[in-house]
Parts: sequence; C-alpha cells; structure tokens
Amino acid sequence: MSDVSIEQLRHQVWQANMDLERYHLVTFTWGNVSGIDRERGVMLIKPSGVSYSELSAENMVEVSLEDGSVADGQMKPSSDTATHLELYQQFPEIQGIVHTHSTHAVAWAQAGMDIPAFGTTHADYFYGPIACTRALKQQEIDEAYELNTGKVIAEHIDKSQVMAIPGIVVKEHGPFAWGTSPANAVHNAVVLEEVARMALYTLQINAATTPVNQGLLDKHYLRKHGKNAYYGQSTNK
Amino acid sequence: MSDVSIEQLRHQVWQANMDLERYHLVTFTWGNVSGIDRERGVMLIKPSGVSYSELSAENMVEVSLEDGSVADGQMKPSSDTATHLELYQQFPEIQGIVHTHSTHAVAWAQAGMDIPAFGTTHADYFYGPIACTRALKQQEIDEAYELNTGKVIAEHIDKSQVMAIPGIVVKEHGPFAWGTSPANAVHNAVVLEEVARMALYTLQINAATTPVNQGLLDKHYLRKHGKNAYYGQSTNK
Amino acid sequence: MSDVSIEQLRHQVWQANMDLERYHLVTFTWGNVSGIDRERGVMLIKPSGVSYSELSAENMVEVSLEDGSVADGQMKPSSDTATHLELYQQFPEIQGIVHTHSTHAVAWAQAGMDIPAFGTTHADYFYGPIACTRALKQQEIDEAYELNTGKVIAEHIDKSQVMAIPGIVVKEHGPFAWGTSPANAVHNAVVLEEVARMALYTLQINAATTPVNQGLLDKHYLRKHGKNAYYGQSTNK
Amino acid sequence: MSDVSIEQLRHQVWQANMDLERYHLVTFTWGNVSGIDRERGVMLIKPSGVSYSELSAENMVEVSLEDGSVADGQMKPSSDTATHLELYQQFPEIQGIVHTHSTHAVAWAQAGMDIPAFGTTHADYFYGPIACTRALKQQEIDEAYELNTGKVIAEHIDKSQVMAIPGIVVKEHGPFAWGTSPANAVHNAVVLEEVARMALYTLQINAATTPVNQGLLDKHYLRKHGKNAYYGQSTNK
Repeated sequence: MSDVSIEQLRHQVWQANMDLERYHLVTFTWGNVSGIDRERGVMLIKPSGVSYSELSAENMVEVSLEDGSVADGQMKPSSDTATHLELYQQFPEIQGIVHTHSTHAVAWAQAGMDIPAFGTTHADYFYGPIACTRALKQQEIDEAYELNTGKVIAEHIDKSQVMAIPGIVVKEHGPFAWGTSPANAVHNAVVLEEVARMALYTLQINAATTPVNQGLLDKHYLRKHGKNAYYGQSTNK
Repeated sequence: MSDVSIEQLRHQVWQANMDLERYHLVTFTWGNVSGIDRERGVMLIKPSGVSYSELSAENMVEVSLEDGSVADGQMKPSSDTATHLELYQQFPEIQGIVHTHSTHAVAWAQAGMDIPAFGTTHADYFYGPIACTRALKQQEIDEAYELNTGKVIAEHIDKSQVMAIPGIVVKEHGPFAWGTSPANAVHNAVVLEEVARMALYTLQINAATTPVNQGLLDKHYLRKHGKNAYYGQSTNK
Repeated sequence: MSDVSIEQLRHQVWQANMDLERYHLVTFTWGNVSGIDRERGVMLIKPSGVSYSELSAENMVEVSLEDGSVADGQMKPSSDTATHLELYQQFPEIQGIVHTHSTHAVAWAQAGMDIPAFGTTHADYFYGPIACTRALKQQEIDEAYELNTGKVIAEHIDKSQVMAIPGIVVKEHGPFAWGTSPANAVHNAVVLEEVARMALYTLQINAATTPVNQGLLDKHYLRKHGKNAYYGQSTNK
Repeated sequence: MSDVSIEQLRHQVWQANMDLERYHLVTFTWGNVSGIDRERGVMLIKPSGVSYSELSAENMVEVSLEDGSVADGQMKPSSDTATHLELYQQFPEIQGIVHTHSTHAVAWAQAGMDIPAFGTTHADYFYGPIACTRALKQQEIDEAYELNTGKVIAEHIDKSQVMAIPGIVVKEHGPFAWGTSPANAVHNAVVLEEVARMALYTLQINAATTPVNQGLLDKHYLRKHGKNAYYGQSTNK
C-alpha cells in the first residue's frame, strides 16, 4: 500500500497547484503540478487551461501510468501530461513534478544557458549548475512534442543525481522542477526561480563571475541534504 | 442581432478596464479598453482621464462608428478614441482593444525595437515577433495624431495575421493589444507585457539570443489556436 | 484669503505624505511632502524621522516662511525643511513639494545623468528631460547643506518652465518633485519614478536610444497641459 | 541588570524574525535574527529551518555565550549560530544580528564586489562602502564553517567602525547586518538590500559611476548618527 491514499494525493496535487499562484510563479494558467502513486499506477495532474480560481481537488485528473489515458475525471489533463509521464518513468525517485513559465527561469531557458551555481542559495538546493537542455529537433517537435520534451530533459540528467539537482530549464521554453512530493517540487521551483533571478543580477554586477568551488557546494548542499545534514529540526530534511 | 446586448457589452468594457489595474498594467489612468458592437454601429470606451476607482459600467462612453461622435454618455471618451476607431475599421475581426503604458512594453517601444519571439511563452499567443511601428511624421502628428497612430499601426499589420499577432508597440509611445472581446484583448495585453519583460532579461543573459525556429512557433501557437488545437478544455480556445 | 483653510491644507499635506507609502515611493521614513499657504506665510511639512503609521494631520509641522522657525507644532520639521523653503521662495507657482528616495530616480541621481524624454509617458508630464543637478561643493555642504540643496536645484531650473518640468534629481541624492498642490506634487513624483524605470529598461534594450523629437513632446505635453488641452474631462487639467 | 528582561528580549527576537517576511527579505526560512543578553550570558536566535508562520516568542532558542550549547528551548538553534556567536564575541557593541539571502545583496556577494557608497541613501546608514569578504578557504570550510564565516567577517571590519558600517556581504553567500537591537539590525538589513538594489541600477545607467566624496558621506552619516545629529525627533537616533 502507498502511504498516502489517492484522496490525500489528490488534495496534495491541488494544493501544490494553488501554491504556484501564491509564490508568484504563474501568469494565468501557465503552470501545472502533478503527483504520482506508483503502486496504484496513476498520476494526478492539473486539468488543461483551467484557471487556478476554478481548481478543486475534485477536478485534478487521474491519468494511467501505463498508457496516459484518463483513469478518472471529467476534464482533459494538462497538455504537458506526456512530459510528466516520461519523467516519472525515467526517474523512479521523483514523486512530484512542476512546470511553470516563471519569469527569470524562462529568461535563462530562452537565452539557452545553464544557470551557474554562483552561491550558497543555489548550493543549498541544487548540487551543481541547473542545466539548460538542447533545443528539440524538428522531427521531435512534429512527432510527439510533449513526450520528446521529457526525453530531452532526461538526456541532460545524470540518473544518480536526479534528486540532487531537482530542476532544469528546457531551451526556448521554461523550467521543470521535481521533488519527493508535489509540495517539495513546488518548493524547488520557487528556489529555481529565485536563483535564476540572483544569477542574472550577479552577472550584471560582474560579468566575469565564476561558479563556487566544489568545497562550498559540498558544504552547503550536504549540510541540508547529506546523511550528516544538520540544517532544520530533523536529522534528514 | 448581436449576441451580446449593449448593456452586456457596457459591463464587459467596464470590467476589462478594471482588470488593467488588477493585472498591474497601469499607473493612474494610463490605459483604456474598448469594445465594439458592429451591428449597432457603436464602440464603448473608457472616459478620458477618469481614475479606475470612479469607473462604472454606466460611465463607459458610447461612440458612433460612423463619425466618432458621442452616441450616449455624459463624459468625453478617451483621448485615444480615434486610434481605436481606426483599428476597428481596418480589421473587422477585432472585437476589443487595449492601450496601456505597461512598463516593459513601453521600454521596447521607446527603444524602437520589435519584441522577438524568444520562446514558447511568446509563441503560445503571438505567432511571430511583436512589431514596433515607425515613428509618426511631424505632419501626421500635427494633422490628426490619434487617427494617424491607428493608421501607422495598421501599416505594420499583415491583415491575414491580425488575430495571430494580437498586439504591437507604437514607437516612442507604448503597446496596443486586441482580441475577440474586451477581456481577450486585456489577456493579450498581459501576455505582451510579460513577454516584453522576459525578452529584456533574455538579452541581458545572452545578447546573441536568436528567435525560435518556425517549427517551434508553429507547434506552440497551433496547439493553442489552430484548428487542431488541443490546449484547454474546449477544442478551439 | 487663501482658498483652502489652514486645517484643509494640514489634512492635504498629511494625506499626501501617506500616499508616498501607497505608491511605493518610500522605505521607512525616506520621504516628505510639504504644502504652502503663501498668504498666511506658512509651510506645512512632515515631522522629521516619524514613521508614516504614526503620522496624523495634527502632527504636520507649521513652519514660518519668513525665518524657517516652527510656527505651530510640537515636533521638529523634516531635516529637508530648508530645501523646501528655498524652492517655494524661488518659484511662486509651486504649491506642493515632495522629496523621496524612490529606487529608480535615485539610480539616475547616483549615476549623475539627466533622465531623457524617451517617450510619451514622459512627455505627458515632463516637457523635456528631467535634469540631474551638479554635485554640491564641499563649502556648500559644510555651510548650509539643505538650503544649498535648494539653491543648486534652482540653478538647474528655467523659471518659465518650472511647472512644465515639475521635478529634478539631485546628484548623488535623489528626486524632488513639485506641483500645484501637495497631491499634485506626489502625482508627479510617481511619474518621475516610473519614467526613470522605463528609461533604464529602454537603454538596456537599446543603448543608442535618442530622445523624442520636439514635435511629439509638444503634442503629448500640450494635449494634457496646454491651453488647448483635450485630455481628461475638464478643459485644463 | 540588563535593561530588558529575558522575556522582553525573547519577544523582540521573535518580532524581528517576523519582520524579515514583512520587509520581503526572505524566501521560505532563508533568514534568521538573534539578540543578546550579555549580562545573562545568552543569545536568543531563531530555530533552524522553521517557517515564519510557525514561529513564536516561545520557540526562540536560548544559547549559551560560553560554549554555544542550548541553555533553554526544545528546538535546535539556527545552523548559523556559530557565526552569530563569533560576531557578538568580537564586537561588544553589537546587540542584534541578522542574516538573510535578500536578492540584491546576495547578487553583490556572488559577484564578489563591495557595494560602493554611491549616494546619500547609503551614506545615511553606512559610513563607507559595504565590504564583500574574501571567500573561505577549503580548510576553513571543512573545519568549522559557520564559526569561520564569523571570523572572516571580523577580518574585514575595522573595530572602531563596526557600528558605523553595520553590515557586510559574505562572498558567494549573502548579507549579514547588525545593530543596537534585533529590530535595529533588521532595519539595517532592509537598508543594505535597498542600497544594493540602487547600486546595481546605478551601474546599469552609468558604469563609470564613482563613490560619493567623503564630505557628503560625512554630512549625511553625521546628520543622522553623529553627536550633532539633527535628523529625527531626538538628539541622537
């Protein structure tokens, strides 16, 4: 048995979608969050093009992991559904995924540049640069755009590090972030946007800024996430 | 008969004007929205220089399409009335028009540059670069400034694409956006401001950024707007 | 007799000071507004260093125009009192003055650059570039800093144009704006900050941007302010 | 006896932590404030990783100045505790300390640059440039990261000027600010963020901007802070 019921997950996914507005990550309907129940074989995701004010836990769409069909729900799932499914399939550790068009992360995606790890704010959450993917090829766009977006993301991820760098920007598109739950994925999406903003300003002050050394990256990432983590109230948070 | 009554349109135009503040597109009274009832031969538009807190559906001004005179209302219509009328006349598909001085769109207008289609956020709504018009000539300014502003906008629009790129920036002035209704025009004005902002940041990160390929532009625009659109809950939204 | 009572003016000055927060022009107590009653020979101004939440109409300080002494009130007037008095003395048309440290206007002041008239937003309110003053000389700082700040501002103003360009930035310091009333001065301070922001972004997009031609400046300024003004509901607003 | 009871200090430290959100200095839990009672030999500080909405005066952690152990409280103190303790030890005048990851101050830290005193907003609170520290050496990171962060900060401070320039940015990390109380430290942290923002924009307008002369720095700092201060309602504020 999963440790959360499908109804609890439904509520978590809805809450995480609502938090996109609260954290100023979205304009209109430009974002979606999903959560997964691997044992039941389903993903829950925001319906396509519905404004946040009309969302409820009930209208989160349940999608089969097997074939991407709607398992439960009256509405069409997010148009990005195939991207989410591909990421869940490739990376068994991921339990929640977020896609937004948050302003500064999109700017890095449009510029086609990795977001360098310029400081400890970045290192606290992302254990290295946040990659910008390659652009999709025309054939990839034509044949199965959303699925291939997922595949291109996966190309740029070191499987052993997927949870250590829980986000990416897709070239000419925007950010995806993930985590150990829908809420944790949103948390990482907020950080991604903020470090994208800080990195832009950093380069404006000093265009020659170089990334932090591995030692500082280790220290900050591991004091929050390693087996000897000592940040927060619990041992491993 | 039109499918909305004049009172419904009056309410829509008022609501759309109020939304300019809600979406942070205006300082003071620096923006106006109009709507049109082509069968009745009238346009409804914000009164000139009145603050949003004093607006009501009742004080939207009804202007004759024939000669621009006030058909109904105690107040003077927006000083930009002749620009709106010219656009409605030139482009029969337009059902609502917005003019604002939103910050980032104005910056592109002042810089005299088209806003390139740098990514999918842009492509989702604008099927190509958002043009910056030429400046008005002195004679055009002197003779009929607001009318000629409309004419100069029309010069830069491909008639077959007017609804595919539903906005423009007027050189040294600011943005105009339009749509299938007053609310849809405001929606497009919000997107125009946001993509103007993203494009500025994109160039700051990488001054050599080039626009997206036609293939990605097609994919994103058409998944939302083409006859095979699959974004959102209805077939064609 | 003045057309507003001293109690009305007291209320207007208090309200205008409160509006500095509402319009996001101030951090902490970094701004002050004054109003003048030339017939009664007094200026009313914010008390020094008092937070906006503690302000009331009652604690606006009444200062004598003759010698700058406190004519009525228990509190010390703003430390910038001598600057305000100097401007009122030099320019009889000014009826209200605002000083803030609003972010973008300060940036232009610190950069030591005039804010060019890059577009119609600027031209609607400021009939030409907004000057940046020279820096004060050491002797001017030592002998009578606030008074000399007023004198240096006055140096940069064409007397016949004082109401046509109702603001300035003092080098290495920040903006002053004025108007036909305390509220009108705040209005102009809001515009000054917004055009300062737009001008920064404009240069970031196109560093070679040049100011608008006199013809467009005339058109926009005069359609709002000239004797043939046609913006707004009244003839001359 | 101290002039505030330990319960009063507890409340002050809690209130100052809450103000970090109010002044938009923090994302999530990325900031902490402490206060000190030197006579009782304790520091009070935010618990580690607890969100501001869950904070109360009661869960501020009391830490012994002698050995850094928890003197009172159920929770673990901020992971930055050793940095705070080192600064209190080195600088007896400091009564409150703030650490945040406020966006613009972090950008200067990441860029590795001192924040120049470009204008009077800076000079009103910081009597010279705000230093950016050197980076920590690998050995310093490995052996006692937080303690050595405090030591590196102390290296860059002229002891006689610690209260005259009440803040610093730690290279590749972010800002620390301090003051005569927890609330005053937060006040200085707000100013540090705002002058960091203004300085960035200043350089964007004019990359050749130079710092203000000593004379203007003296005038503004001393009119607020010197023994002849005349800003505000009391003689020395």
